[in-house]
Amino acid sequence: MPGTMKNTLLVYLLLASSAALAQTQTNRLTVNQQRIDTRLMELAKFGAQPGGASRVGYSKADQESRLYFIGLMKKAGLAVTVDYAGNIIGRRKGKNPALKPIGFGSHIDTVPNGGNYDGTVGSISGLELIDILNENNIVTEHPLELLIFANEEGGTIGSGAMIGKVTPAALKAVTQSGLTMADGIRAIGGNPDSLPQMVRKKGDLAAFVELHIEQGGILEKENLQIGVVEGIVGIEDWEVTIQGTPNHAGTTPMNNRHDAMLAAAKLIVAVNEVITSHDGRQVGTVGKIAVEPGAYNVIPGKVVLGMEIRDLNYDKIWSLFREVEGRAKEIAKVSGTTISFRQPFTPVTPALTAKPIQDKIIGATKGLGFSYRMIQSGAGHDSQEIARIAPVGMIFIPSVDGISHSPKEFSKPIDIANGANVLLQTVLALDRE
Amino acid sequence: MPGTMKNTLLVYLLLASSAALAQTQTNRLTVNQQRIDTRLMELAKFGAQPGGASRVGYSKADQESRLYFIGLMKKAGLAVTVDYAGNIIGRRKGKNPALKPIGFGSHIDTVPNGGNYDGTVGSISGLELIDILNENNIVTEHPLELLIFANEEGGTIGSGAMIGKVTPAALKAVTQSGLTMADGIRAIGGNPDSLPQMVRKKGDLAAFVELHIEQGGILEKENLQIGVVEGIVGIEDWEVTIQGTPNHAGTTPMNNRHDAMLAAAKLIVAVNEVITSHDGRQVGTVGKIAVEPGAYNVIPGKVVLGMEIRDLNYDKIWSLFREVEGRAKEIAKVSGTTISFRQPFTPVTPALTAKPIQDKIIGATKGLGFSYRMIQSGAGHDSQEIARIAPVGMIFIPSVDGISHSPKEFSKPIDIANGANVLLQTVLALDRE
Repeated sequence: MPGTMKNTLLVYLLLASSAALAQTQTNRLTVNQQRIDTRLMELAKFGAQPGGASRVGYSKADQESRLYFIGLMKKAGLAVTVDYAGNIIGRRKGKNPALKPIGFGSHIDTVPNGGNYDGTVGSISGLELIDILNENNIVTEHPLELLIFANEEGGTIGSGAMIGKVTPAALKAVTQSGLTMADGIRAIGGNPDSLPQMVRKKGDLAAFVELHIEQGGILEKENLQIGVVEGIVGIEDWEVTIQGTPNHAGTTPMNNRHDAMLAAAKLIVAVNEVITSHDGRQVGTVGKIAVEPGAYNVIPGKVVLGMEIRDLNYDKIWSLFREVEGRAKEIAKVSGTTISFRQPFTPVTPALTAKPIQDKIIGATKGLGFSYRMIQSGAGHDSQEIARIAPVGMIFIPSVDGISHSPKEFSKPIDIANGANVLLQTVLALDRE
Repeated sequence: MPGTMKNTLLVYLLLASSAALAQTQTNRLTVNQQRIDTRLMELAKFGAQPGGASRVGYSKADQESRLYFIGLMKKAGLAVTVDYAGNIIGRRKGKNPALKPIGFGSHIDTVPNGGNYDGTVGSISGLELIDILNENNIVTEHPLELLIFANEEGGTIGSGAMIGKVTPAALKAVTQSGLTMADGIRAIGGNPDSLPQMVRKKGDLAAFVELHIEQGGILEKENLQIGVVEGIVGIEDWEVTIQGTPNHAGTTPMNNRHDAMLAAAKLIVAVNEVITSHDGRQVGTVGKIAVEPGAYNVIPGKVVLGMEIRDLNYDKIWSLFREVEGRAKEIAKVSGTTISFRQPFTPVTPALTAKPIQDKIIGATKGLGFSYRMIQSGAGHDSQEIARIAPVGMIFIPSVDGISHSPKEFSKPIDIANGANVLLQTVLALDRE
């Protein structure tokens, strides 16, 4: 072995052992559970309601909570900007300016009469990650970006704008704050006219990781600490119109009826049968119904249903729908009604998380000794938008009783801290790549 | 054979042949189809709507049509009074003052946006009967009473008052005219405070016969001219509450749902199965539904249904309901919901028509050479109230397309005249007894 080679090997070994040392150091970092909890409670004061909070996107409470959060970000040394959609972006420099930033974060707005965990857990844990790095004088290779998306509950508006999805027509819609979307965006410091200029391209972010409460009961039921999200389901909605013949409920014999309600009932049962007769985690729901004329003594002439199907696989959603359609045809024939389907909303396409980020989350989870399972997100998240321009990962923590979008929403402080630790270790692992 | 006996026989034969002669004469009487039709069209002008009429009980249009009708009754020589409930009573003397009157008639009020035949056909045909007797100088043995009942469509109020069914509480209810029932009764010349004094006793009427449109499609479908009504069905209504658990339609797995809508749908199908799995003419309808919270993306937590069962047999209604209840228990168990029943309205007890009057109607129908069938009335009528104090009979004529309570309601002039002729011959036959 020539001398030069020996030296190279020596340098290599030294570097490797220093890297290993650094990794061992960062592996030992843990978040401050008390600080996370305190900040969650401070955030809960904005728009406080008994047990929860109403911080609808663009509302006064939303605006005030954003100022509070921007204050914390600045205190943590982040370079804070608000983009044209009102997303709050906190930047921390990395060692290697050639690398694209690693993003993480979530949102701090809520549904009307919502809870204190949906969105806030990921936002405050992202800030905690910055604080921990600061306290340990760690500078990552990549720049870091803490992203607090605007008006997530209004339909992932801030993250949608970041990928160029918000249309001029949508800006005119009145949001739950009472403001039009355009005025709402102005109210939080954005500029609706400049949205096209803020659109990010594929590759602008090295990765994006979101920690979130599950909003379902699977982790709690299976007594697991972490959910590694495989993807965010697609959502297709249908308005179903069943047209029968209204008639006198006393004088019309049973065999001479074209009862829209009976046909609707058979279809609701059929939707459930179709969805549950296939393996997988697809869900199908009929959540809405209206009947005309709607009286005890009149055979219903018309029923309108609101139906949706969700799955990670777009083709599966549509093959399930085709089956439902087939069943509807049979039901219409037997009952002498007509059944028609129309899609009232823009569908949500399924968004898969990146396998390499899933692996990093699993690695971090195992390293911390937590139990976990692969899980799909049945609810929508900012990550599903960002997935169009960057590899994303999502970490779920248990929701007590699976309750969400309610003042009863709750996640235990220890579960939140576990999730924040997984987020921290995942970001550090991504940075090491 | 002694002389006295001979004489008695002679007198008897003379009497019998004179009676036979009179019967032959009266058998030849026929109503004036043109006059009935003209009066129907005149009545239609009160509260006229495109194709139909809105003459809600106690309304201005109702008041005006009553004055028109009272005018016709007086012109026909009837002694007209208005009782405390606002029922119009037109009396014609009989030969034998010891006999109780034979009553006939119907109502001239309509549902909002109703048609020109429901009630009016029986009212105008009753008046026609008087005119025909007048024109032929016929005086019946019994006194006759043409009864035009007040506010039938508001729940057989006038006929109900006649049997003592209208409570002081009911008088406070606001009717579809906008007036309270008490004020409505005053507006048509009644006196709500004196209702108890107008109550008739069993035996006060020798009989009551009502001609009415079928309000269903059976006679038309079977191409028959007359329906001989066996009875008016009883009606029992139930408000059914299905309590499940509202939850996120995306994050709640199919096997972890307590979907109130799915349970309601299964129950609606079960109601239909129970009703149609038994022989007979019972009908069962779920005409009303409300869901909470009622959004595409939320699994329904609560559904409230409006259900009713009608049949001529009270016990059968309840045995069908017990079956529905049993099915509900199974559905609740499987779906993890609770299903409860409560009766929101005063039930309507079935009212049977009198067999001897049915026979007279059949006899008259056969005598006139009309086709007929026995039929039950699925709708409520004044006759069902009067059945509590007198033997009643009902004659149905075909409704085109079975449509009623609609401006599209229509019965052919020839069918109406046929019905009026059956009414005339039935009353004459009852008088001969």
